[in-house]
Amino acid sequence: MQLAERLKRLGTETAFAVSAEAAKHVAAGHKVYPFHLGDMNIRTPRNIIEATYKAMLDGKTGYCPNYGIPALRELLAEDINKTHNTRYTMSHVAIQPGGKPSIGKFVQVLMNPGDEALYPNPGYPIYESQIQYHGGVAVPYTYHEGAENFEMDLKAIEAKITPRTKLLVLNDLQNPTGAEADPAQLAAIAEMAKRHNLFVLCDEAYFDIRYAGTSVSLASFKGMQERCVILYTFSKKYAMTGWRLGASIGPQDIIDAVAKLNVNDESCSNHFIQYGAIEALTGDQSGHADILRILKERRDIAAAILNTIPGVRCYRPNATFYLFPNVTGLMKAKKISDYETFRKAALHDTGVSFCTRRHFGTPIAGETEAYIRFAYSGINVDQIEEGLAKLKTWAQA
Amino acid sequence: MQLAERLKRLGTETAFAVSAEAAKHVAAGHKVYPFHLGDMNIRTPRNIIEATYKAMLDGKTGYCPNYGIPALRELLAEDINKTHNTRYTMSHVAIQPGGKPSIGKFVQVLMNPGDEALYPNPGYPIYESQIQYHGGVAVPYTYHEGAENFEMDLKAIEAKITPRTKLLVLNDLQNPTGAEADPAQLAAIAEMAKRHNLFVLCDEAYFDIRYAGTSVSLASFKGMQERCVILYTFSKKYAMTGWRLGASIGPQDIIDAVAKLNVNDESCSNHFIQYGAIEALTGDQSGHADILRILKERRDIAAAILNTIPGVRCYRPNATFYLFPNVTGLMKAKKISDYETFRKAALHDTGVSFCTRRHFGTPIAGETEAYIRFAYSGINVDQIEEGLAKLKTWAQA
Repeated sequence: MQLAERLKRLGTETAFAVSAEAAKHVAAGHKVYPFHLGDMNIRTPRNIIEATYKAMLDGKTGYCPNYGIPALRELLAEDINKTHNTRYTMSHVAIQPGGKPSIGKFVQVLMNPGDEALYPNPGYPIYESQIQYHGGVAVPYTYHEGAENFEMDLKAIEAKITPRTKLLVLNDLQNPTGAEADPAQLAAIAEMAKRHNLFVLCDEAYFDIRYAGTSVSLASFKGMQERCVILYTFSKKYAMTGWRLGASIGPQDIIDAVAKLNVNDESCSNHFIQYGAIEALTGDQSGHADILRILKERRDIAAAILNTIPGVRCYRPNATFYLFPNVTGLMKAKKISDYETFRKAALHDTGVSFCTRRHFGTPIAGETEAYIRFAYSGINVDQIEEGLAKLKTWAQA
Repeated sequence: MQLAERLKRLGTETAFAVSAEAAKHVAAGHKVYPFHLGDMNIRTPRNIIEATYKAMLDGKTGYCPNYGIPALRELLAEDINKTHNTRYTMSHVAIQPGGKPSIGKFVQVLMNPGDEALYPNPGYPIYESQIQYHGGVAVPYTYHEGAENFEMDLKAIEAKITPRTKLLVLNDLQNPTGAEADPAQLAAIAEMAKRHNLFVLCDEAYFDIRYAGTSVSLASFKGMQERCVILYTFSKKYAMTGWRLGASIGPQDIIDAVAKLNVNDESCSNHFIQYGAIEALTGDQSGHADILRILKERRDIAAAILNTIPGVRCYRPNATFYLFPNVTGLMKAKKISDYETFRKAALHDTGVSFCTRRHFGTPIAGETEAYIRFAYSGINVDQIEEGLAKLKTWAQA
């Protein structure tokens, strides 16, 4: 059978293979410490579940508008305005079945074949996949180790801009590095975007997952509401990953086109869970506070232990639920030069399962340091301690 | 702002404008009889809601696999095999956020730009939109009035096949006409598909919405499981339109590609509602029986009254929840020659709101008869009687 040519340009999340391997290891009778998951082992707050159940009983089981229900769109615009210094209204909001749909729809609405799009690498692999799938040229930019965290190099990014560059994907706060731009850098990115007439996907999936400081959006800066589309998701803030609910928020003509894609691709998002989302935004926030408290404790312990392992150094980012330790020394000590061998050896010898830099894009030519990603969203503190202790013993062996 | 060129090829459902107009008419203080809706005013059976609530409480709120949960895929394969004479296993099933996503994904996986795809017109407008959006040539085929219902003309369809024809969209049982092919015709379609090496999207959204007889799938015929992708949806059978849950069912290499699109487009479908779907398939079926009983009563009354209106003639199809009356005589009597004027006059003068043939594709050159679509899924019997009585009075005026 001859499948369509376009599928050759379609990427995927290779991290799924890590999950499958970990599951196999468990099935074979071994213990696994799941640091590979981007998922959360924390329950959705009960008030959100009850509001959703009530909506089902109230008969919110028929179609809703392709843009989502007006009450949620209005609330989301107000909620975003409070933290973003923006002037969004419901006409700037199209509800989506998750955060991810905003990536492909942004690309489809703003990029022509042959256009260039800048995206983070290491980064969430779906950016590159959607850009290439829709005929664009995916141009990677990277992060480097700074004083306290990974940092973007704006000069290096601007050097990659050509007359064909149309889009910039900014995932601030970033998966997998946990990096965040400071307000001065964001201001410089805003100026760069205006100077080169770029449209920006602001993937803000982790905007509300932070343990100190305040998140700032690129859309906050002068003239940027007109050229940013915010990827919003309920997934992380309220531990609702499996609900599949988010939104594209941006200029009205872009959002109208996104909503037309909604009509074609899925009609609308699930109706009744949007009432759960209204409760999430307006109801008791103690569930969200609990989520942050749990995650912060995990971060502190995981980062502290990782930094005691020989050949490993690790920042302790104030946001996201990821750590991206440099393991160059450890790999050398283990005499392992490639990521997959290293990952499998650690899994086999210690049960500690993680993704590597390789799951977040093809390493860029000249990349000399080696990194792995620890997600602490799906593993409890006692298991973090136990697993990383085994990893440390292995490192010292 | 310059949006991407591809959006010029993207269609939509113009029926949404009819809903908006009806809502405006209501807001202005008028009564509306909603025959335009493809939605249902029937509640989802309670056992399905309770199973979904239980799954939320059980913590089925994290991600699930991009293919959907194995238990549901396995059950769906078994359930389909019972009525389809097929040998599907879970590896042939990819759960989708609704029935509609199967359309665009089928097109993306099997059609190259420039390929031709046959689709029904009048028909669901998303077929044409997705074919053209992805660079294909959308070739319409039509239905004509037969002895007891609308019929396909297989000779006319085969005459449209060229060496570039790659796909056939078959919506049997059909929206908007209510047409269905008999087994002999399906056998002939199967032979035609094999003769010309066509892949077929079997849009079976209404497979279980029937009041007499037995639905037969094109996938049942010899050699057709290998070249059919079934669009399955929970929407109609269990009054779950707003849940957004369905599946693509077909050959494994196609389904694997569809599931790779799932990874890129939405990760997975909502996790916990898949447990509701398991209850739908395995639990008490009285909810589904109630839905059919309610719809049949509506069909009988609506078809009977329509056939008493001068200038209107109407089949009474055994499946779907649509009637597609010929209103050529009524339009002539009203001295109205275009669909939109006719639709608006009826809404204004009687409150009866419906879609016309125009909402299901561009009329084909030489089309002399005029049709409108009455959906009886969203309006109760007393309102059907009251509304159609007003329409009759208007017709006689």
